[in-house]
Amino acid sequence: MMLCNHFLHSPISILSSSSSSSSSSSSRSKLKPFVSKSVMDDRSNKFKEFPFVSIEHKNLMVDLVSTLENRFDSQLLPSTLPSHVQHYQNPNATSQASLHIRSAHAHSPIDFILGSWVHSELPTGGSLDITSLSGYLNSSNDAPNFVFEMIRSSPTMLVLILDLPPRKDLVLWPDDLKTFYEDTQLDKHRKALETLPEVQPYFSSSLYIRTVASPTAIMVRIQTENDGGERMEEIIRDHLDPISKQVLSIWLDHCACAKREVGEAERAYLKKRDGIIRNKTIEIDLGSSFPRLFGSEVANRVLEVIKDYFSV
Amino acid sequence: MMLCNHFLHSPISILSSSSSSSSSSSSRSKLKPFVSKSVMDDRSNKFKEFPFVSIEHKNLMVDLVSTLENRFDSQLLPSTLPSHVQHYQNPNATSQASLHIRSAHAHSPIDFILGSWVHSELPTGGSLDITSLSGYLNSSNDAPNFVFEMIRSSPTMLVLILDLPPRKDLVLWPDDLKTFYEDTQLDKHRKALETLPEVQPYFSSSLYIRTVASPTAIMVRIQTENDGGERMEEIIRDHLDPISKQVLSIWLDHCACAKREVGEAERAYLKKRDGIIRNKTIEIDLGSSFPRLFGSEVANRVLEVIKDYFSV
Repeated sequence: MMLCNHFLHSPISILSSSSSSSSSSSSRSKLKPFVSKSVMDDRSNKFKEFPFVSIEHKNLMVDLVSTLENRFDSQLLPSTLPSHVQHYQNPNATSQASLHIRSAHAHSPIDFILGSWVHSELPTGGSLDITSLSGYLNSSNDAPNFVFEMIRSSPTMLVLILDLPPRKDLVLWPDDLKTFYEDTQLDKHRKALETLPEVQPYFSSSLYIRTVASPTAIMVRIQTENDGGERMEEIIRDHLDPISKQVLSIWLDHCACAKREVGEAERAYLKKRDGIIRNKTIEIDLGSSFPRLFGSEVANRVLEVIKDYFSV
Repeated sequence: MMLCNHFLHSPISILSSSSSSSSSSSSRSKLKPFVSKSVMDDRSNKFKEFPFVSIEHKNLMVDLVSTLENRFDSQLLPSTLPSHVQHYQNPNATSQASLHIRSAHAHSPIDFILGSWVHSELPTGGSLDITSLSGYLNSSNDAPNFVFEMIRSSPTMLVLILDLPPRKDLVLWPDDLKTFYEDTQLDKHRKALETLPEVQPYFSSSLYIRTVASPTAIMVRIQTENDGGERMEEIIRDHLDPISKQVLSIWLDHCACAKREVGEAERAYLKKRDGIIRNKTIEIDLGSSFPRLFGSEVANRVLEVIKDYFSV
């Protein structure tokens, strides 16, 4: 839950820690073709255009969103976001973002899915680009949620967060640790990424974000050589793409679609824990980076809408 | 809790992942002086001799144990461990170990403290040496426990685990996250270690061990150049020594000695959660590496005694 809206928090830590963030001209030329007048006018489709990221990055996002939406096609309701929340920007248009939220019908295990991208011009001349996709279950199912986020502050620097954050204290429920994390062999994907020399573990500056993560969370910082981003695109295509799809597949098959018995007491526990995480997410994020990127008026407007979905 | 007896689990992962574990003659020569006939005969003092590790390693352990025991001098009861559990070895004497457990009186926040060392000759000709110290609080105090462990499978390879593992789900108790982990600035010690080029994050192969760790847990693998261990001793003296003492000091001042209001319901919760972790520790450890190091008869004998202290 927390991690889903991690993008609202993470920009500051990324901005403050990135030493070199200028986009090279080669990566710029890759990005331009996706921005067109017709896309800018059609706000409802804009989310899936991912207009500011590379083709490899966009392909991965589009595939993940499609896989998730197709799997729950009959259960997901059309988006009802007002257009000024589907796409928004700060007053001087240096930051813009798209938001995509779809609730599910009452009998679905899904509470809602949330996708977003943020593009923000950096003072250094480069840009910060964040794309994310999350799946939230409701309290009829006690399985973990799905969280995916790519944060890119230069063509050669990327932070990936890919996790199935647990919704119960795994210390008290070791059987859930076995079912969702051990039996599904989730850790092998983290290990596979770790073998790449460009990949280092990433520690969020927020201890709360670390606290809500699972023991198999993939939280990595990828730093490639200064080659204009070519090696990074290769890593996205050959490693992040297949790994992300495999983890989403585990979530779809073993979590979202799992047949779970959830009693009344456990539902109350899930509602309480989910609620705390969602409130904490909004508190941490709204209080810091989100207003800085979009100004307080825009930030508040978008937040009021998100709050509706986040209420349990 | 779990991590305290992590040593019972960790040898296997260390053994299976260490590529080069021969002790050099220079490190051997450092170790010999601590083994003497008189020490071998005095089992009650043997724990504090740390006879198989380097002077820097021994100094650190002795200082930590003394600091902890002196602070609670009036509250700790004398050890009542039978001598064959204070020191034990496998039938062919290739593995030996010392165990030191002291309970506290009923009005102390301390449940018990547990120290140990394990020395095991490796088939490769080197040795595996594990030293650990833990502090366990009882359910009148809801603060985190203290866990310290150094695992060394060669003069140039060391795994350090240093943590204040939480006893409550920090997602449900974000105030505790702030009190014990944010306000105490625990994370700066992890960050300081991370700046050393020889230090890498260590991911335990046990997901349960990762699950019980705090968000500021120091779990690192230190690999130095093949210099017979000189650089490692420097790292122990200049970095691990001061950092470990600072973390112990935070635990003593802000956790073990904190005035906490713990209601009846919360005590029951702590007992349940502590109990699950302790049982899981024994289950994971006894089922795997402990019998392999000492044989099942010795392992069972020691375990029966540990179980008494671990019952909540």
